[in-house]
Amino acid sequence: MVAKRKRKERAMGKVVLDKSMSLDGFITGPGGDLERVHAWMFAEADPEGINRKVIEEFFETTGASVMGRGMWDAVDAPDGWGPNGWTGPDGTVLPFSAFVLTHEELPPVTRGKTTFTFVDEGIENVLARAKAAAGERDVVLQGANIARQYLEARLVDEVHLHLVPVLLGDGIRLFERNETGHVELERIEVLEAPGVTHLRFRVVK
Amino acid sequence: MVAKRKRKERAMGKVVLDKSMSLDGFITGPGGDLERVHAWMFAEADPEGINRKVIEEFFETTGASVMGRGMWDAVDAPDGWGPNGWTGPDGTVLPFSAFVLTHEELPPVTRGKTTFTFVDEGIENVLARAKAAAGERDVVLQGANIARQYLEARLVDEVHLHLVPVLLGDGIRLFERNETGHVELERIEVLEAPGVTHLRFRVVK
Repeated sequence: MVAKRKRKERAMGKVVLDKSMSLDGFITGPGGDLERVHAWMFAEADPEGINRKVIEEFFETTGASVMGRGMWDAVDAPDGWGPNGWTGPDGTVLPFSAFVLTHEELPPVTRGKTTFTFVDEGIENVLARAKAAAGERDVVLQGANIARQYLEARLVDEVHLHLVPVLLGDGIRLFERNETGHVELERIEVLEAPGVTHLRFRVVK
Repeated sequence: MVAKRKRKERAMGKVVLDKSMSLDGFITGPGGDLERVHAWMFAEADPEGINRKVIEEFFETTGASVMGRGMWDAVDAPDGWGPNGWTGPDGTVLPFSAFVLTHEELPPVTRGKTTFTFVDEGIENVLARAKAAAGERDVVLQGANIARQYLEARLVDEVHLHLVPVLLGDGIRLFERNETGHVELERIEVLEAPGVTHLRFRVVK
């Protein structure tokens, strides 16, 4: 159904930065805590089903992901979110291709239907591989450091932020200071949902 | 008209942090540039008049402001925004009381109908003075450093952010890291306007 819709629109897959972020700019809380910024995904109260639809769409439209070593370590941890692969909102294990940028040489790892490939290449080459794997679907960038590298190289098409109404005071920042000058964006969607505001921007190129 | 509305609601003035901020969290660009984050205030294209209404409401509801020395220096600069006092959207010069937190002893300065009083007191005392001056209207906090001090002291009632769709990469951050743990907020309003998304949050106390 997704592929059909995509074909109808003749859309190419996009390169998307998709993150939950506190109002003060953190994608984790102090000590790497991931719970508060992702609480909206697990909250029961969602009468209009907006959060559910946002999550469903993410799973429908994502074909591959690119992450850094730090994110893989979080996936791989005993309490990591990925021991059985990526699970869609209906409980199905979904097939994804994940590329982990690291200088270490490691054999591929399969979790559920997701294969994690460890690559020591430039970000453009890795993106080309992720795009090929994603086909018509999107490549999602995971992790702040990876996101910044692709933003600085002007390789990101859209920024999807799930803005969480909290000031965390500390943690991993999505947008650290950088030297690449400014990136203009264009707002394309705002969705008010319980516990979160979903904001979508197109990168002006 | 404003005073009437306020009386009808029996509302007390609020303590409001009101800032224009880039998506990466900066209230100025590199080198202190204020133009990009405030461009929405001066943009011509505003067919539904949302930006105009937001500005008008700011001027209607604000009775006093508290700022740091850095903000006063910006006001006082040859190209500062305040040489004739605060000017409302209809060009009228509006009466405000402004309190500048500084350790320097300086005599009060009047610009237009705004009196700037320089005070070397604790933030709670200064807020009490600003509240008395504002009456039923709001006290607006200006400047990142001041805002953080009042947020950390849990003295802020609402956070009004004008979120500008741009990554500036550098500048003055509104929310620096702090050690006071987290502040929960509740979203109370989202307005999509040309070149900016107006977000209002209540501080959960």
